[in-house]
Parts: sequence; structure tokens; C-alpha cells
Amino acid sequence: MTGWRMRSYGPSGDDLAELILRDVSAADHPALWAMLEPVFRAGETYAVDTDISREDALGFWCGGNHRAFLAEAGGMGLGSYYICPNQGGGGAHVCNCGFVTAGAAQGRGVARAMLAHALETARASGFHAMQFNFVVESNTRAIALWQAYGFEVVGRLPGAFRHLQKGFIDALVMYRRL
Amino acid sequence: MTGWRMRSYGPSGDDLAELILRDVSAADHPALWAMLEPVFRAGETYAVDTDISREDALGFWCGGNHRAFLAEAGGMGLGSYYICPNQGGGGAHVCNCGFVTAGAAQGRGVARAMLAHALETARASGFHAMQFNFVVESNTRAIALWQAYGFEVVGRLPGAFRHLQKGFIDALVMYRRL
Repeated sequence: MTGWRMRSYGPSGDDLAELILRDVSAADHPALWAMLEPVFRAGETYAVDTDISREDALGFWCGGNHRAFLAEAGGMGLGSYYICPNQGGGGAHVCNCGFVTAGAAQGRGVARAMLAHALETARASGFHAMQFNFVVESNTRAIALWQAYGFEVVGRLPGAFRHLQKGFIDALVMYRRL
Repeated sequence: MTGWRMRSYGPSGDDLAELILRDVSAADHPALWAMLEPVFRAGETYAVDTDISREDALGFWCGGNHRAFLAEAGGMGLGSYYICPNQGGGGAHVCNCGFVTAGAAQGRGVARAMLAHALETARASGFHAMQFNFVVESNTRAIALWQAYGFEVVGRLPGAFRHLQKGFIDALVMYRRL
């Protein structure tokens, strides 16, 4: 799947030209951290310590059994996602992913392109389903995108996320078969 | 909570006398592994590789941010559980636990005693809720116990567990506020 290319059109009709999806390398870490840091510091969408270090954040995103991809156009990193088995043993046929879009690239269809690529990658890797374990209910843009791509809300965790602005709100478990 | 004692009565009226709950120490690892190995090898209740090594199994149970307890009576280890935050950051107020009962101690109320202790430990540690992420639907004894203690099924993951005997079956997400 390395070097997978697609044309992607955001909701505004914005043309990303050729958005390339490729494996993250160590050389991409500065660009990746520049995307992750504001998202993690904001504490609005990921259940990650808001003061997480650069090293821990990159380790979380790219380390262990995660495979991480970079979405880039014109040599600029616009987004990234990782894919991994969601459980071990008898649960290893279901994958999990995490997505981040660079602030300046919001609303241009980068997340949609990454999701399409992730679904292809998951199928090619032999996974049977994809699960998001913890989708913060206020993250309505992401929820709408997942639903447009066939994900269903299969669980609701009451008050499971302490949003820095909104206080205790629900998190959703979303799932789709591949 | 170290040295916490309780009298526990299993469903048959079996008297465990004083069941002690205390932190697991390295000296308990042989007894703990003797409990974990048959459960993990069976591949029926935990989403863990069935060929997991002793070291990895003990690392999973006791390592990282897990706090592990041993339930013992008369100097015999009868069960163990761990407790940990289920997520980081804005999700760290919800805990997760895993439980194992020694084969010879089944049906005597050990799991019930450990759950009661876990709920106390969770409250004392400041957690707001307890979540089980992946309860295999065929594990009906555990599900009945969790429900008796106020847990609700808040999610169902279709076909998310490949049971060695039953094939693809659902896993449940269970949750209770503390």
C-alpha cells in the first residue's frame, strides 16, 4: 500500500491534487508532532494526557503494533493515521485506527481520504472489522464521517470523557465490518 | 486496602473463612501464573494470544499502570484481579479490571469477593466508573455476576471474538458508575 495515491475532494470542492498516503518514517516526526501536539494539548478528542511529551506521543502513534501513515500533498504532511489490532488473541481480527489532520488542512477531505485508505489497508491486512473504542460525543464532524462510511454506534460510555470545556460527556464505541 | 479481609460465601453456601485481598508480590508469580495459564491457553474469555509466554502474561497482568491483587485463604492463592485507568487524559476517571479465579476455587464466591473489593478500591482511588471493554458473550457466569453488581451492557461488538470452539461471537462492553 506504500505510495498509494488518490484524488480527494473536500466538501468545499477543494482539490488536494494528488494526496499521497505512505508509511511514516523518522524524518516525518517533526511534521507529525506538529499535527499531534495541538490536538493532544487541546484535550477535546483524544483520551491522552494533555501534557504528554513529544517522545511519548510519537511512541503512542507509531510504536508497538501500530502502523502509521502520513497523508501528504506537494511534500506537505496534511494528516496521519495509525492502524493496529484492537485486541490480541481471539480479538485480533478487529483493527483500530486513530486519525489526525493538520490544523491548516481541516475541511479539505484529508480525513475522508485517510479513512478510505485505512479501510483498504485493513481489508488487505485481513482484518474483518474496524472499531473505534472511544469517540468523544462532541466530535460531531468525525462521527458524521464515520457514519457516512458505514460505522455504527455500538456502544455509549456515559460520562466517560472529561472534556476540558464541556465537562463530563459520553464517548461512543463505533464499529463496522469490512 | 492492603490486608483487606472479608467473609465470603459462595453460591453453594461454601465458607471461604477469611478471604484476604492483598497486593500481588513477585513471590506470588508462580501461583498467579498457575491461575492465568489455563485461562489464557483456553482462549475462551480473554483476548490474549493463547500461546502467550509466562513473562508476557505476568507483565500484562501486573505491569504498566496495573495494580494487581491476590485473593487468598489459608495461604492458598484462589484468585487475582488487576485495576487500572481505562484511558489516559480525559478518560482516566474510568477504571478497568480483569479477574481470574483458580480452577479449583470456581463456584465458591471468589470472583464475587474480588469484585466487591475492586469496587471499593476503585472508589477509594477516586475513579468515577468501572468499564469492562471486552466481555465475551459466552462467559455467562461473569456477565451474570457483573449485572448482579450493577453493571450494564452499554455496547455489543458483533463477531469481535473468535472463540476456539464457538467461532465468531460477540463481545460486550459493560459499565457501571461508582
